[in-house]
Amino acid sequence: MTLNAIKQMETYARYNPQVVSLSQGIPYQRTDNDIRLAVVEAMLQNKVDAYSDPQGLLQLRQKISEMLLTEDMQYSDDEILITAGATEGLSATILSLLISERKEILIPTPSYSAYYKIVESAQGKPVFIQLNEEKGWSLENSLLEKQITKKTAAILLCNPNNPTGSIYSKEELLAICLIAKEKDIMVILDEVYGNMLFDTKELYTPCVVEDFKKNIIRVVSFSKDFSLTGWRVAFLHSHRKVIQKILPVHDALVNCAPVISQYAALAALENKERILENNKIIYTKNRALMQRYLDNLQEYISYQKPIGSYFFFPRLLKEENSIDFCFKFLEKENVAVVPGSDFGPGGESHIRLCFGRKKEDIIKGMEGLTRFLVNTN
Amino acid sequence: MTLNAIKQMETYARYNPQVVSLSQGIPYQRTDNDIRLAVVEAMLQNKVDAYSDPQGLLQLRQKISEMLLTEDMQYSDDEILITAGATEGLSATILSLLISERKEILIPTPSYSAYYKIVESAQGKPVFIQLNEEKGWSLENSLLEKQITKKTAAILLCNPNNPTGSIYSKEELLAICLIAKEKDIMVILDEVYGNMLFDTKELYTPCVVEDFKKNIIRVVSFSKDFSLTGWRVAFLHSHRKVIQKILPVHDALVNCAPVISQYAALAALENKERILENNKIIYTKNRALMQRYLDNLQEYISYQKPIGSYFFFPRLLKEENSIDFCFKFLEKENVAVVPGSDFGPGGESHIRLCFGRKKEDIIKGMEGLTRFLVNTN
Repeated sequence: MTLNAIKQMETYARYNPQVVSLSQGIPYQRTDNDIRLAVVEAMLQNKVDAYSDPQGLLQLRQKISEMLLTEDMQYSDDEILITAGATEGLSATILSLLISERKEILIPTPSYSAYYKIVESAQGKPVFIQLNEEKGWSLENSLLEKQITKKTAAILLCNPNNPTGSIYSKEELLAICLIAKEKDIMVILDEVYGNMLFDTKELYTPCVVEDFKKNIIRVVSFSKDFSLTGWRVAFLHSHRKVIQKILPVHDALVNCAPVISQYAALAALENKERILENNKIIYTKNRALMQRYLDNLQEYISYQKPIGSYFFFPRLLKEENSIDFCFKFLEKENVAVVPGSDFGPGGESHIRLCFGRKKEDIIKGMEGLTRFLVNTN
Repeated sequence: MTLNAIKQMETYARYNPQVVSLSQGIPYQRTDNDIRLAVVEAMLQNKVDAYSDPQGLLQLRQKISEMLLTEDMQYSDDEILITAGATEGLSATILSLLISERKEILIPTPSYSAYYKIVESAQGKPVFIQLNEEKGWSLENSLLEKQITKKTAAILLCNPNNPTGSIYSKEELLAICLIAKEKDIMVILDEVYGNMLFDTKELYTPCVVEDFKKNIIRVVSFSKDFSLTGWRVAFLHSHRKVIQKILPVHDALVNCAPVISQYAALAALENKERILENNKIIYTKNRALMQRYLDNLQEYISYQKPIGSYFFFPRLLKEENSIDFCFKFLEKENVAVVPGSDFGPGGESHIRLCFGRKKEDIIKGMEGLTRFLVNTN
């Protein structure tokens, strides 16, 4: 196994300052001042030195429980687990689900490339399901049902979907959960970009249906919403019986989420509305900026406007091999972007462009892309 | 799977303030002021917000590389991986080693109870090897050789050993590494308590032997030495080919170690001598304090004086079942300690007592133990 292309590209950009990166999904903004102040205060009060409860600070879980209630989801503090980032939450979840014969995790493709790396690291087997690009990257139930066997442990859904920026509709999600319940598999719902939505769209989460509680594990991160990617803190929630299975695995992976980051998360929730409001303004502008470049390149690419997340995922009209394309582009223009093939077989012939990065980088990167496409075609 | 007894006991104590805990290995000291200042400075310089290189901050890896060189170990920065605590380092390591038929990890017992939880979480199989209590908890080569089969991936050694406080001698370690090299298995060397040594003892590490580089993965934590357990930061080092296999698994587990904690680690190393000097004074006193109580209880327990770590691991002379003992003791005296059976089959009939906790807790806990042993026997 190797690092995925997102990380390879980003690592290359990190050590080569001439390279502009639109690769990894890193919000360019700095962490909010109120979060920073809260962290320093917690440190001065000697609250962050020692391990926390493996399940996470009770205070934070209670706060999340209250927040979920305002969103019509009923989960008590013992049904919430604080993790060292969404990645760790997903790893702990998947490791807890892989038992005896059930080693397969269904992954719609294209979807976040870490998923199959996580499944493979967990000694499981990723099974891809092709999303339908023509129908807004939707998931067809018949394809899903065909892939569920006695070996299936779960389906892993990213909503909004990274890299496509599409969202699953209420009808799709309810259908998936019904199938999951019927076939006795779990739905792992990664809503890391759940608050990054445009054009007044809203995200439906099937966790509001009490009847699905035992079949859904919902993962929510603080990283993207609050520019806390370096802090490694997220949470997941599910029925307490499910949490009780994930908890010892989480404990075996990391002991507990970093405590200072748990206090950052607490402060983030206390300032949630203000911070998210500000994000929406910035990312809406960034999306429009990137889109203007893409609109001028319609001879070379086609794209769907993202509804959620901070990614465009244009299709390359004159190049099949996305890895070839990205390496040539990097070499020629010093711009790092992610080859679509990184997101599973369904992502080939596309590239992923992050508009969460700073404005100057978006401009430099997109100017480079324009030059490259025009000159090489 | 459930949480191990250490965590169950500690969680109970956490939510029941009348309970004194000598259970989990948490240094009672607060994190050093110079570390705190460095962390705030890094935050103000906007260095901690975003993901780091998955392998860890280059600056920190370079500093560790220099430090290792002063200890006669040659590892370049790309042979070092910064992890979200030693636990994550061990999980990533073990997940990277379990391939096809090689699913077994050898674990001397008694040894740290997280080990078999980690191996089980990783879908592997722990295989215990009994340590010899009469010979200072040493590992017999013949027993080791007998357990190595085609299914063996690695042996996991804790040195100094938690919970016994014993250390493996140079001769033992060289013999183990020779056997490992010959049989083509890995030695995972957990030296989390490597700096917590008493009576002018020194720890020998076989990493100084260049010839063993490809067979040893050495794990070192900042948690215990620098009272940073809540920060989740540690490192491991090995030959670059081994690191290249662990890196993508580490990336799949946590993305990167929490960045703010990596800056804490950097400051810790810059203040290492002062902090370790201070630890030695405190833990030497605490050890003597606990020992005075144990010496008065020789009718009920026998013990070996710990050479390293901050644990005593006395044998119960009048009680076989350590779990029964610990629960009765908790109920009667409100003191949480860890049943020896948590450390594998070799730990039964013992209890683990942590003298890293604060003085008042050691006194209360040991007074409780004295009362309990005298009254119930």
